[in-house]
Amino acid sequence: MKNQHRREFLKHSGKWTLAAVALNAGVSNLFANTTNATSTANASTTSTIKSKGLAAFDNSGILRPFEFFRRALSDNDILIDIKFASICHSDIHQIKGDWGAQQYPQVPGHEIVGIVAKVGAKVKGFKVGDRVGVGCMCDNFKLHSAPNSLKGGEQYDKDTLFTYGFKDLREPSGISQGGYSSNIVVNAHFAVKIPANLRFEEAAPLLCAGVTTYSPLMKYNIKKGDKVGVAGIGGLGHLAVKLAVSKGAKVYAFTTTSLKSADIKGFGASEVIVVKDALKDTSALNAYKGSLDYMISTIPAAFDVGAYAACVKPFGTFTQVGMPPKFEVSLSNLALSQSRVNYTASLIGDMKETQDVINYCAAHNIRPQIEIIKANSVNSAWQNVLNKQARYRYVIDSGSI
Amino acid sequence: MKNQHRREFLKHSGKWTLAAVALNAGVSNLFANTTNATSTANASTTSTIKSKGLAAFDNSGILRPFEFFRRALSDNDILIDIKFASICHSDIHQIKGDWGAQQYPQVPGHEIVGIVAKVGAKVKGFKVGDRVGVGCMCDNFKLHSAPNSLKGGEQYDKDTLFTYGFKDLREPSGISQGGYSSNIVVNAHFAVKIPANLRFEEAAPLLCAGVTTYSPLMKYNIKKGDKVGVAGIGGLGHLAVKLAVSKGAKVYAFTTTSLKSADIKGFGASEVIVVKDALKDTSALNAYKGSLDYMISTIPAAFDVGAYAACVKPFGTFTQVGMPPKFEVSLSNLALSQSRVNYTASLIGDMKETQDVINYCAAHNIRPQIEIIKANSVNSAWQNVLNKQARYRYVIDSGSI
Repeated sequence: MKNQHRREFLKHSGKWTLAAVALNAGVSNLFANTTNATSTANASTTSTIKSKGLAAFDNSGILRPFEFFRRALSDNDILIDIKFASICHSDIHQIKGDWGAQQYPQVPGHEIVGIVAKVGAKVKGFKVGDRVGVGCMCDNFKLHSAPNSLKGGEQYDKDTLFTYGFKDLREPSGISQGGYSSNIVVNAHFAVKIPANLRFEEAAPLLCAGVTTYSPLMKYNIKKGDKVGVAGIGGLGHLAVKLAVSKGAKVYAFTTTSLKSADIKGFGASEVIVVKDALKDTSALNAYKGSLDYMISTIPAAFDVGAYAACVKPFGTFTQVGMPPKFEVSLSNLALSQSRVNYTASLIGDMKETQDVINYCAAHNIRPQIEIIKANSVNSAWQNVLNKQARYRYVIDSGSI
Repeated sequence: MKNQHRREFLKHSGKWTLAAVALNAGVSNLFANTTNATSTANASTTSTIKSKGLAAFDNSGILRPFEFFRRALSDNDILIDIKFASICHSDIHQIKGDWGAQQYPQVPGHEIVGIVAKVGAKVKGFKVGDRVGVGCMCDNFKLHSAPNSLKGGEQYDKDTLFTYGFKDLREPSGISQGGYSSNIVVNAHFAVKIPANLRFEEAAPLLCAGVTTYSPLMKYNIKKGDKVGVAGIGGLGHLAVKLAVSKGAKVYAFTTTSLKSADIKGFGASEVIVVKDALKDTSALNAYKGSLDYMISTIPAAFDVGAYAACVKPFGTFTQVGMPPKFEVSLSNLALSQSRVNYTASLIGDMKETQDVINYCAAHNIRPQIEIIKANSVNSAWQNVLNKQARYRYVIDSGSI
């Protein structure tokens, strides 16, 4: 299998060269990288870890089975046997190159749960058999020399390594490879514990969708009686509704998919507002102008920011957590000035918040609405996500990979 | 002259029809408007007011002399003999159609000072001979039936009429006509007093540039020792520098025009940072990342919002007052999330703030840096504004029109 891996590597190295302008800046010498990756694979033959995954081989958005090796465990790492990984719209954006050119083969997945199979020599707080989760981040280079140097805000730290597609010379494939796979090696700092009363498959979506909505909802101190808007009711949005409801808020859910209305009421929303077109016909929003205390948008595409933000009371806050193609948001500065609303953006949450949302959902009986799929359904599931047919999170049974 | 006016009207009515998609929504019947405007001109022959101005006749950005009539004085109006009107970048944006198709002929100008020549029967607080100023707003239809119904926030009120280019069936030309002219009729609610110690020509730029920067600087409570960034040092920006300095702030001025550096230091800025290209090369900003308490941007064109906003400390505020073409601002939601900065927009200020900035500048000896021009230099002055050669506000001597 090692040989097959190396053939895969050589076969795709040309493609990698073409993908030089990857997400990661500062990669000036692809040849050096290739050399390094190859020699690492050679030097650590006995300790690199065989893995099976679902990978993209180009930007078509089609995934195929892929066997590969992960780096050997370092002292601060843990090896996790993955049980489930759920599908985030971000997986599709990144793999298709919407956020920048990518290196392939690349295994997506950053909502990962499983069981600790091995721990590095210096790992504290985790032992073999622990139920754990991993989200969008898997390591930080600062921690290698100063293990206690990160106190929150990991997602904004320049040395943080994201779970897939990020240059990592320690990896045989040269990049981090995500959770649509049988196992993963991560720095233990980036793992969280899954309480016994939270089923694995229901914990997975909390690692990105959960924490991404939990973080701003807590930061902006949503409280009983607040009128909270949630725009875009997919994987993130349906959890935002449940989280805001759990804080006692009166939730106004804005969707373009009228078929979701009954579900959304079931999640606890007070009102469901069906918007005809989030960019071109937002007339349904007019009745809510200046009425909400806070609004969070998970919409991952172009939309009329000014019209949505205007639903918030003057001087209130609107948070955009959906990340559209190229991360680019266009807004009318005139409309925003007229609403007098603060526009803010938020990126996932830090590791403390990730553990917090897991514990909070476990304690408050908040569960994502999921559909478990086998590996061979992953491509149709991606299509459903794009077509707004996901209800509301697909979770891949890793045993089927 | 009345006949000439009517010929002008008829001559341009076809063009007006083409300009049906004007700034003002709800104009569904252009023919009704034409009829109304003509009949108004007829009905009030003795009381419409002759005016001379500098008008655009199309979207070329070229102004030519134009004689026209203003509506008769209503009970709550004042007639002002204009002494000076200054040139705002917004004048150019609007006249060239950057913010929506326009009706022509149109006289721009919303930084207007002069002397009250006549007052309506119900006007309180102003008398003939008073020194007054008018900014971006000139009337509000709500006031006609309920004179005391507006208590601040006029610029955000849907019934407010802006000083030029807004549909107004009472005007013989069918739209409000601005201050590059010999006189103007406005509702007295939208006039402010100019103290005796403030020269007319130095008061004019405060009516838009002054209040637009004053309003957010006061709202965000800039205080002694704060590090305040000002991006874009033109008519608005140079006043923002002076205002922030007057509050005791340490001001960091960001400009793409290195030739302005000495001037800007003269305005009191602690540092002048020359940015190579506000959209494509903002490397000069890197050294200021996360260092400012607050930042205001007057940049009226596309720029790298994420890079500028990132100069503000996490959870601080960035305010965009410059209004780019189509009012459209594009930003990287990822960059904004990483900076954790609140993006806000602000539109001029309300009437109380307009009087406040006049009084504040008079009391604190804050004066715009101006260059007085004659009417026949207006087109070259506009070119200089576009070419970043204005230093820092052109003021038209209305006597030369």
